[in-house]
Amino acid sequence: MVTSRWTAAPAQTASLRRRGAVLERAILDAALDQLSTVGWNGLTMEGVAAGAQTGKAAVYRRWPSKEDLVADALRAGLPSFEAAPNLGSVRDDLLKLCRQARDAMYSRPGFALRSVIHECDNIQAERFHGVIIKGVVEPTIQLLREVIDRGIERGEVRADAANGYVVDAIPAMMMYRSKMCASEWNDHEIEEMVDQLMVPLLRPYGV
Amino acid sequence: MVTSRWTAAPAQTASLRRRGAVLERAILDAALDQLSTVGWNGLTMEGVAAGAQTGKAAVYRRWPSKEDLVADALRAGLPSFEAAPNLGSVRDDLLKLCRQARDAMYSRPGFALRSVIHECDNIQAERFHGVIIKGVVEPTIQLLREVIDRGIERGEVRADAANGYVVDAIPAMMMYRSKMCASEWNDHEIEEMVDQLMVPLLRPYGV
Repeated sequence: MVTSRWTAAPAQTASLRRRGAVLERAILDAALDQLSTVGWNGLTMEGVAAGAQTGKAAVYRRWPSKEDLVADALRAGLPSFEAAPNLGSVRDDLLKLCRQARDAMYSRPGFALRSVIHECDNIQAERFHGVIIKGVVEPTIQLLREVIDRGIERGEVRADAANGYVVDAIPAMMMYRSKMCASEWNDHEIEEMVDQLMVPLLRPYGV
Repeated sequence: MVTSRWTAAPAQTASLRRRGAVLERAILDAALDQLSTVGWNGLTMEGVAAGAQTGKAAVYRRWPSKEDLVADALRAGLPSFEAAPNLGSVRDDLLKLCRQARDAMYSRPGFALRSVIHECDNIQAERFHGVIIKGVVEPTIQLLREVIDRGIERGEVRADAANGYVVDAIPAMMMYRSKMCASEWNDHEIEEMVDQLMVPLLRPYGV
């Protein structure tokens, strides 16, 4: 709120107090910034407040703890998943969906999430694993189910493919190779997985 | 070595010094025992020596560090994988192999491995992840390849199934559900995975 003045000249002591969503956005951005410069261990509520050009109280009022703040900042920073791709073929839909999941996991907040999990203790890490699950894994699985259901309707996918093991195969494989081979799932690797694992797995009987 | 005496009565001060493999086995067992009673954090080289009724020097001579000792103890404790099952059908071979992998991961050393990884710091955890990979994952993958190759020879499995994505599907899925759903992979769940994921994935074309 800018203090009202009769004169047109900006007041020397005018204070610009941001409110609501704008201030929260600034604080979350400052938290992401701190994470990328000093990491989980170096991040402090004071440092975040300073980076957002606000007071510590404004931060604590909304986020009682460092974990709360960082979890929110990372969740808010992850790319969101829109509707399931619908490009006309299951193969194309799967390619697009897998690239979306890959883009989220290898986005700046995705990398930050993994660093934080690496740096913090096991109890805190559970919280951040939850951000990956809610922010990336669950939306991916939801959209995968839609892609598979649509494929079944079109006769492109066998009718009994809509089960948990088939759907979990993609997140399972992506996490596995990420961990075991430090794979960053480039477009070529995604294509290989779709062609060598998913297409044969989903194809109708008699084909 | 028992000090030789002319009398038949056991010497009061006879010392039984174990050597080689027998002493090492005692030390490794004592380490596993310490892990299950006091865990990674509580385990000390002194405590292990005492549990093995030997001196600290005997332990340090063979294992320069706590990590070396615990890694060896866990690796030695894991069930070993024999030859690939050859029961006449790919489905039966896969069921048996998955149960073997499950038995290893949910054996006492398997549980101990996961506790240690949870308790120790990230650098040390890498070492113990390595024990899981070398002791369970890699043998399983090797035997999976053999089962799949034999299935291809028999015409039970499509010729292009011998690729890394198909083979990785099983360890990937087992790790994923173990982590995400705290699944302990009972026999029913293994059967579901083989029937809903692997059998459709491996079946020949035109079927």
